[in-house]
Amino acid sequence: MMHRVSPVRPAFGSVAVLFTLACASVGPPASLGVSVPNASAPTIPADTTRPRVEIATTTRFDPASAGVYAGTHPETYAHIDAHLAEHVEHLRRWVRQPSISAENRGIRQMAELLRDDLRKLGFKEAELVPTSGHPGVWGFYDAGAPTTLAIYMMYDVQPVEPAGWSVPAFDGAIVDHPLGKVLMARGAINQKGPERAFLNAIESIIATKGKLPVNLMVVAEGEEELGSLHYPEIIDKYESRLRQASGVFFPFLSQGASADVTMFLGVKGIVYFEVEARGNARGGPKTAEIHGSYKAITDSPVWRLTQALASLTSRDGNTILVPGYYQAIRPPNAEEQQLANTMADQWTKAEPAMRAGFGVDRWADGVSGRASLADYLFSTTLNIDGIWSGYTGVGMKTILPHVATAKLDSRLVPNQTPDEALRLIRAHLNAKGFTEVVVRKLSGYPPAQTSVTAPLVRAALSVYNKYGYPTSVAPRLAGSAPYYVFTDRLKLPLVAGGVGHGSGAHAPNEFMVVEPKAGSKIAGLADVEKFYVDLLYALAEMR
Amino acid sequence: MMHRVSPVRPAFGSVAVLFTLACASVGPPASLGVSVPNASAPTIPADTTRPRVEIATTTRFDPASAGVYAGTHPETYAHIDAHLAEHVEHLRRWVRQPSISAENRGIRQMAELLRDDLRKLGFKEAELVPTSGHPGVWGFYDAGAPTTLAIYMMYDVQPVEPAGWSVPAFDGAIVDHPLGKVLMARGAINQKGPERAFLNAIESIIATKGKLPVNLMVVAEGEEELGSLHYPEIIDKYESRLRQASGVFFPFLSQGASADVTMFLGVKGIVYFEVEARGNARGGPKTAEIHGSYKAITDSPVWRLTQALASLTSRDGNTILVPGYYQAIRPPNAEEQQLANTMADQWTKAEPAMRAGFGVDRWADGVSGRASLADYLFSTTLNIDGIWSGYTGVGMKTILPHVATAKLDSRLVPNQTPDEALRLIRAHLNAKGFTEVVVRKLSGYPPAQTSVTAPLVRAALSVYNKYGYPTSVAPRLAGSAPYYVFTDRLKLPLVAGGVGHGSGAHAPNEFMVVEPKAGSKIAGLADVEKFYVDLLYALAEMR
Repeated sequence: MMHRVSPVRPAFGSVAVLFTLACASVGPPASLGVSVPNASAPTIPADTTRPRVEIATTTRFDPASAGVYAGTHPETYAHIDAHLAEHVEHLRRWVRQPSISAENRGIRQMAELLRDDLRKLGFKEAELVPTSGHPGVWGFYDAGAPTTLAIYMMYDVQPVEPAGWSVPAFDGAIVDHPLGKVLMARGAINQKGPERAFLNAIESIIATKGKLPVNLMVVAEGEEELGSLHYPEIIDKYESRLRQASGVFFPFLSQGASADVTMFLGVKGIVYFEVEARGNARGGPKTAEIHGSYKAITDSPVWRLTQALASLTSRDGNTILVPGYYQAIRPPNAEEQQLANTMADQWTKAEPAMRAGFGVDRWADGVSGRASLADYLFSTTLNIDGIWSGYTGVGMKTILPHVATAKLDSRLVPNQTPDEALRLIRAHLNAKGFTEVVVRKLSGYPPAQTSVTAPLVRAALSVYNKYGYPTSVAPRLAGSAPYYVFTDRLKLPLVAGGVGHGSGAHAPNEFMVVEPKAGSKIAGLADVEKFYVDLLYALAEMR
Repeated sequence: MMHRVSPVRPAFGSVAVLFTLACASVGPPASLGVSVPNASAPTIPADTTRPRVEIATTTRFDPASAGVYAGTHPETYAHIDAHLAEHVEHLRRWVRQPSISAENRGIRQMAELLRDDLRKLGFKEAELVPTSGHPGVWGFYDAGAPTTLAIYMMYDVQPVEPAGWSVPAFDGAIVDHPLGKVLMARGAINQKGPERAFLNAIESIIATKGKLPVNLMVVAEGEEELGSLHYPEIIDKYESRLRQASGVFFPFLSQGASADVTMFLGVKGIVYFEVEARGNARGGPKTAEIHGSYKAITDSPVWRLTQALASLTSRDGNTILVPGYYQAIRPPNAEEQQLANTMADQWTKAEPAMRAGFGVDRWADGVSGRASLADYLFSTTLNIDGIWSGYTGVGMKTILPHVATAKLDSRLVPNQTPDEALRLIRAHLNAKGFTEVVVRKLSGYPPAQTSVTAPLVRAALSVYNKYGYPTSVAPRLAGSAPYYVFTDRLKLPLVAGGVGHGSGAHAPNEFMVVEPKAGSKIAGLADVEKFYVDLLYALAEMR
């Protein structure tokens, strides 16, 4: 889904966590036929240039400025070490329960498993939250502490294509991997592994200290992989409670394969919509495809869709030609520029491997380094996720289809909003005469962002600093997640964090490192949990 | 397939046979979501206008000018009547043998059945003709006559979607129908029914007269529904023999549901091709889709395909903007104009029902009457048969696809050629900077046409005149068939003709009328066969 904040990451070093790889490839039908010879070398003409952010300043954000968390909790660490086998079994138990939201497979069972685990941990409140879709889970742990932390969780996973897996996806296998012993299963990294590791940490704190240093509000959903459409309904129910929290934490493993840590402070928003052309009162077949020879006297909805889409961008597909589309965007502020400046060296170093991982020879407009980083962080997009009409099988069928549809998304940066973006697109289509072309919104939410100066962020950084992990802080991901419910609606800072590493979310052989190879700087499960212990105490102490 | 010359025809009166309806509808996946309100009324702007043929002359072709065939063959007619039950069984035997070329189901059995039937009828030569695809069938009947006629046949049928059928598609059921008793089966009208009716006529001639009045060369293929890709290979083998023929006949039922007859003298050509954009050295993902958020820094092959396609036509999709595309087209000659003038009244009368049958409220550019008839007969087209890329399922998936493909066809009128048409399209794409976009030819052949003055045509008309059927003669269909192998390569006139009626080719409940309702002017099987008897004699006498 569009919330690829956590997921798949190739091993590109510490900015790697920003890069979320593709889902299973959807291949086209095999094509026969002979190419018409084309002597010229390929070029993509830049017939116009999109507005591009230049970062004129050079000041860098220094992660060391957050200080070093000085606390230590040896009894709890020892408890984790002593119960590690049991903790691993908790992760395996979670991934063995399928919870594929798209297929409604095991959803209720997983929601109940989470609720029951919260109860066993001593959460005073733990309950399923009915929504118009899959249920949420609410939990409240009352430590009688002055500080309350909300925990965002997702308990659903992506569907599985068994073909690519080297172990069954729901067996919870522990597998020898080049990075060490890993838990290989659907959900291992996205997101059950990190989440249950967080609960393991809680369990060890309670076992050794009697109670947690902060109160916790767990707000879990079972539709993250479907776009979190009903998550606001869960927030609705606990809004006044959640407003008492100091911030929101998302258990997450932030180390790349090279062990460096990347934090991100925000996400882009998104508007996802369909554009559709059908035969209508002005022309074209309204009810069914007709024989293709009738193009001689009949309008074609596919041509109309093609022309309508083409009117939205420059010929190279990179500049949005919708009047006003770039207008609302605010330039990066001083903090965002400082963060970008700190990221730039690593980004530039990582780019060749990133492009290789994506199979991309050249970024859009041929830029690289600071320019491509600025595009990545600060630019809006207009992307065609899919398009279809008529006959798409092998060989020939001559029809004039009566309907043609495309799925598009636009990633939104501050201060774009989904509805204003769609309004501009609709107005542009009307102005160009595509009034009959339908624009259908499927989902949309604004971007979200937390300041690097938020105590929650500084606390997290101070724990990374304690363990000596080089940490890169990105102002945002290019991806989207509905964190605006926290950052905009509840005005709460949000941090996704933790040490540890995994990969393959949404893909076969998804894994989380449980016991890294000797000498590796990747955190194993015990260290992941110890980090969460420290983090909770650091948060409790933050002012 | 693109050779919808015979097939499906709604009941629109005598121009009906020109109208070939759509294949089974390919529905899009269900779409959720909310439309963005759009206050304006729909309009399709004609930003540019395509070259349009105006028929300035008013002279009409008069079918009566062909005279009236005076011959009569009462013993043969009586033989047909006496053996009608047996003749119906021959049709049923043919349709009971599935021969779905697309699925290679029953193909060889049907080819052998045809060959064996020809042998039983006394064809001295009757053999399967191997090709690179499904085999052809060759047959030669030597009557020692001065005139030789080639018979084009197709023995394959379209696949079957059992859902829509009220009887099993391969049972050969005789069904009560509003039009009378009909043979309802796949192949009943397209094309086994008419073809076996023709062989029944031959059988009765031989039984009563000892031999046929003309020599026959049967040249049958089993790939018509696949585009006749290997038909030229069959012609290759018998080219010198076929050059001895006086013309080519295709057994065909030319009556519409209203019993009026339409003859057509030609077909448009076609070039069918795919246009494809992929990630390449200049940008975009080359090997697999990537996450949609990377549009911020990555070129999109789908946008490139969309832009490349859009560059080919005007915004309304009706004017081809490829320089030179209309240039080779020769204006309709005097004969074509006369034929069009004769058709115009019937066309105009039939248009509302035609549009209703197609679910089209308005022809392209809002024209009707003589203008739409001219478009239908004389204009080239550029049609998108299908397009696909990326995610096309329900709901949302955010990907940037690495490949996007469209299938297009262009109907070719004299003097367009497939290769020149593609060359112009390629040159235009290059000139617009879409050099990396691939154009892949799947099939192509030029138009075909026979003059209304050809003795073969006049002979056919004289037999229609004998039976008093109002006959409309179209210079061509808007559809395509590879008749150029006869008309261009072998310089032979070609006529598809016969009385009788059927419908539903490529669709469920395909049928051919066997015994029309009392009072109907539609020919039943006996009259269909008697027409073929007369036609063969009329051809034998033609000079």
